[in-house]
Amino acid sequence: MNGYACKENFTADDFFFAGLSKPGLTNNTFGSLVTGANVQKIPGLNTLGVSFSRIDYAPGGLNPPHTHPRATEIAFVLDGELEVGFITTTGTLYSKTVKKGEIFVFPKGLVHFQKNNGKVPAAVIVAFNSQLPGTQSIGATLFAAVPPVPDYVLSQAFQIGTKDVQKIKSRFAPK
Amino acid sequence: MNGYACKENFTADDFFFAGLSKPGLTNNTFGSLVTGANVQKIPGLNTLGVSFSRIDYAPGGLNPPHTHPRATEIAFVLDGELEVGFITTTGTLYSKTVKKGEIFVFPKGLVHFQKNNGKVPAAVIVAFNSQLPGTQSIGATLFAAVPPVPDYVLSQAFQIGTKDVQKIKSRFAPK
Amino acid sequence: MNGYACKENFTADDFFFAGLSKPGLTNNTFGSLVTGANVQKIPGLNTLGVSFSRIDYAPGGLNPPHTHPRATEIAFVLDGELEVGFITTTGTLYSKTVKKGEIFVFPKGLVHFQKNNGKVPAAVIVAFNSQLPGTQSIGATLFAAVPPVPDYVLSQAFQIGTKDVQKIKSRFAPK
Amino acid sequence: MNGYACKENFTADDFFFAGLSKPGLTNNTFGSLVTGANVQKIPGLNTLGVSFSRIDYAPGGLNPPHTHPRATEIAFVLDGELEVGFITTTGTLYSKTVKKGEIFVFPKGLVHFQKNNGKVPAAVIVAFNSQLPGTQSIGATLFAAVPPVPDYVLSQAFQIGTKDVQKIKSRFAPK
Amino acid sequence: MNGYACKENFTADDFFFAGLSKPGLTNNTFGSLVTGANVQKIPGLNTLGVSFSRIDYAPGGLNPPHTHPRATEIAFVLDGELEVGFITTTGTLYSKTVKKGEIFVFPKGLVHFQKNNGKVPAAVIVAFNSQLPGTQSIGATLFAAVPPVPDYVLSQAFQIGTKDVQKIKSRFAPK
Amino acid sequence: MNGYACKENFTADDFFFAGLSKPGLTNNTFGSLVTGANVQKIPGLNTLGVSFSRIDYAPGGLNPPHTHPRATEIAFVLDGELEVGFITTTGTLYSKTVKKGEIFVFPKGLVHFQKNNGKVPAAVIVAFNSQLPGTQSIGATLFAAVPPVPDYVLSQAFQIGTKDVQKIKSRFAPK
Repeated sequence: MNGYACKENFTADDFFFAGLSKPGLTNNTFGSLVTGANVQKIPGLNTLGVSFSRIDYAPGGLNPPHTHPRATEIAFVLDGELEVGFITTTGTLYSKTVKKGEIFVFPKGLVHFQKNNGKVPAAVIVAFNSQLPGTQSIGATLFAAVPPVPDYVLSQAFQIGTKDVQKIKSRFAPK
Repeated sequence: MNGYACKENFTADDFFFAGLSKPGLTNNTFGSLVTGANVQKIPGLNTLGVSFSRIDYAPGGLNPPHTHPRATEIAFVLDGELEVGFITTTGTLYSKTVKKGEIFVFPKGLVHFQKNNGKVPAAVIVAFNSQLPGTQSIGATLFAAVPPVPDYVLSQAFQIGTKDVQKIKSRFAPK
Repeated sequence: MNGYACKENFTADDFFFAGLSKPGLTNNTFGSLVTGANVQKIPGLNTLGVSFSRIDYAPGGLNPPHTHPRATEIAFVLDGELEVGFITTTGTLYSKTVKKGEIFVFPKGLVHFQKNNGKVPAAVIVAFNSQLPGTQSIGATLFAAVPPVPDYVLSQAFQIGTKDVQKIKSRFAPK
Repeated sequence: MNGYACKENFTADDFFFAGLSKPGLTNNTFGSLVTGANVQKIPGLNTLGVSFSRIDYAPGGLNPPHTHPRATEIAFVLDGELEVGFITTTGTLYSKTVKKGEIFVFPKGLVHFQKNNGKVPAAVIVAFNSQLPGTQSIGATLFAAVPPVPDYVLSQAFQIGTKDVQKIKSRFAPK
Repeated sequence: MNGYACKENFTADDFFFAGLSKPGLTNNTFGSLVTGANVQKIPGLNTLGVSFSRIDYAPGGLNPPHTHPRATEIAFVLDGELEVGFITTTGTLYSKTVKKGEIFVFPKGLVHFQKNNGKVPAAVIVAFNSQLPGTQSIGATLFAAVPPVPDYVLSQAFQIGTKDVQKIKSRFAPK
Repeated sequence: MNGYACKENFTADDFFFAGLSKPGLTNNTFGSLVTGANVQKIPGLNTLGVSFSRIDYAPGGLNPPHTHPRATEIAFVLDGELEVGFITTTGTLYSKTVKKGEIFVFPKGLVHFQKNNGKVPAAVIVAFNSQLPGTQSIGATLFAAVPPVPDYVLSQAFQIGTKDVQKIKSRFAPK
């Protein structure tokens, strides 16, 4: 039981989604927006093990370092140009600049990011081998959790003072 | 052992592919072309359980009824408009017209097709939850196998005469 | 949640089925009948990943080309002699005549068939590595779906005229 | 890598096996014989997750209590009549007498047995959801292991004296 | 649906268990006690595929030969010294004496045991790759099932007389 | 093929490991040390899906926030007392103080940490449902990758200046 119903009477609309057809709004802290097309939006995906997201990036926008606990990700660039990268469990960064129509793979569970270094918006469509891959954005996970991760844990983890920790926490605080 | 090597020294290029950036040539029998971006093209996908294909359709083009033995497929329309559909194991057709930016799901192993009824080319990017989903195009599988499926099997299967079978076989013969 | 209940109080009868002990009736269009012994008939199979079917064939009978979206099939000939075959994703037909007591394997998701070319009835017991493998019979899937697959899709798919399509559809129509 | 090769050039014979067509010899200690039709005999089964065995039983013959570490088993009676049973992890015996053409399920990993209480030979064809299910026959596993399980372990395990243990071991000794 | 609920409102206590902190009572037939820390005790383990047990052994105590139908086991010795072993499907015993802080692996589904030959109590913490591995203790499974496994099955299985069978059954009878 | 050999001739030592019996040295930056007991140390674990690690903590020691891309973790406290926690994909911290003999679960792929707030050393034994779970320590992954993650990515990701980024990088630099 995964929390999503097995409907009795499906229609073609249960396998359809129009919500990725328009660019997402990127006027936020990171200049990027992820829009999911997973089992929460497409009931017909239940048990089928695949989903999409669309990510839009303003010029300078960043999809900050994050992981997907339950899936590999493969990205296809719809528009623009992006610097993409992931870091392995042995600490090696694999990164590359990818352009419209090009593909890049982010292996299961590894920390990765995409950065729009260009002067025009960029967008990608990404696929996951999970109907609901989940996401942990590293910055928010550590500096904006509720209840908060203790300052002394973060101070020691990043080898910085608690004032520095509190400064970062303030940047992630809801406005 | 799945036949694909675990390389010792990966580079970022092993997770990269540029081969879907250009439309495929559609001047063929069906007016459509599938270009894969799977583990055969992207060594870094080995064991990661996901892949892409790009499909291009001329006006009137058809990606004829087929199955993927090892994967669900999810499609994102890059350009144009398509009539898409799949048939369930209980014989129900689920079909819909999908436009640029829209998504449709083809559940694992089921027969499905896409048809460009429009007057301009269309294109989709599709994702699979397999590094190598495999494809069986129904027409070619039955009428162009080597060695051939016997005429009497196809005659009985489609409730037509062997002359009709031979006519279809001739259409699928290499030219 | 797969739609089959986890019963609280099982008895031995939940792991038992007598419905394959008699030959199925084969006085139908194809001269063959498939009788399933899966989780729909045997509640104790729930989550256990295996099931049986019995297939009976009149002389000349055909189990027409079909796929199982969720399982490999392995067949044991109970009686008679059959021409069996499957086609791979690269278009190769593997076929063989198998007799009483012999075994043949149909790999996961591939199109396959069995034909009784003999003068006496034949029967097989087949096993699947799924509690409910599902079946798509190619002819009925394409030519008898509800709602119907459009004539122009089938005409293009099989490279025949729409009259030919309509003729095949009429053969698959309920009588 | 599971120890079985991915052949380059398969033929239909790689998916075929004739070794279950004749009854196995049952003139042994238990009056029963298991003949496997798994990946060790059928190379084409590699990675496909299913296999068969045939079991023959002399009158009075027993397939003694055993487990399959990697599979559920489903049995179809070819001939005769058998008392079959399995014991759950909560110590409940589910047993039944099954006749020609009837089916019984032995859930994954549980101890089970089949006994021919009739006056004529019996035979079953059984399927597993593994290409190589493995078998542990309880008696031989504990009383004929090499090197031997210590007498004091078996004495304590079955609450009998070491003389009793040695007596049982002698019955399982190679002759 | 596996019978365990997906709670809506988890707390940290759903991922916590204190029940393995004290030694289990070992004043029983076998001089050993298994205490589980699985999904039945820790609701947060649901779907997560791992669990612990603690096993305590009096001097001379035995965790008698048993199998786990759904998991591999790996043991870490907390205290004392144990003779441990498992038997393969080809009848080979792998055994070893392990001491405090040492580790031993019992592969999935195979019969295994642990015996405290020392003069002081021993204890282990064992992990399983299942949230609920299940256990079949061979002696009790065969000689104390309800309803009972017939005497003639056990007599033939262990090559002993029915009197011997009844003697063993009496030792396993509830007191 | 996972890179670990299927040995032909196993011995009991292939299922044994003594390397967790002694506390690890904790005189390092974080005051903690992880010692693995996985397939790299125990060849017999290959394909078996489970492994252990031992973690030692000096007073004040921290196992800094990290993820395991391929496994759930379950911890048993051997000595001392620890503050443990994980953060969900919706940004909730679940944390608790756990003592000797107590258990805590860290769900698959989520960021988690353990901190010794006590005045004496602490130690845990943790199990994973993977033979090689992999680890990404967040701080080192982002601030000590080779080649380095660009300053401007980290600056934007943590909403700090590049000087702050460089300060953190210097703390993670090899000495």
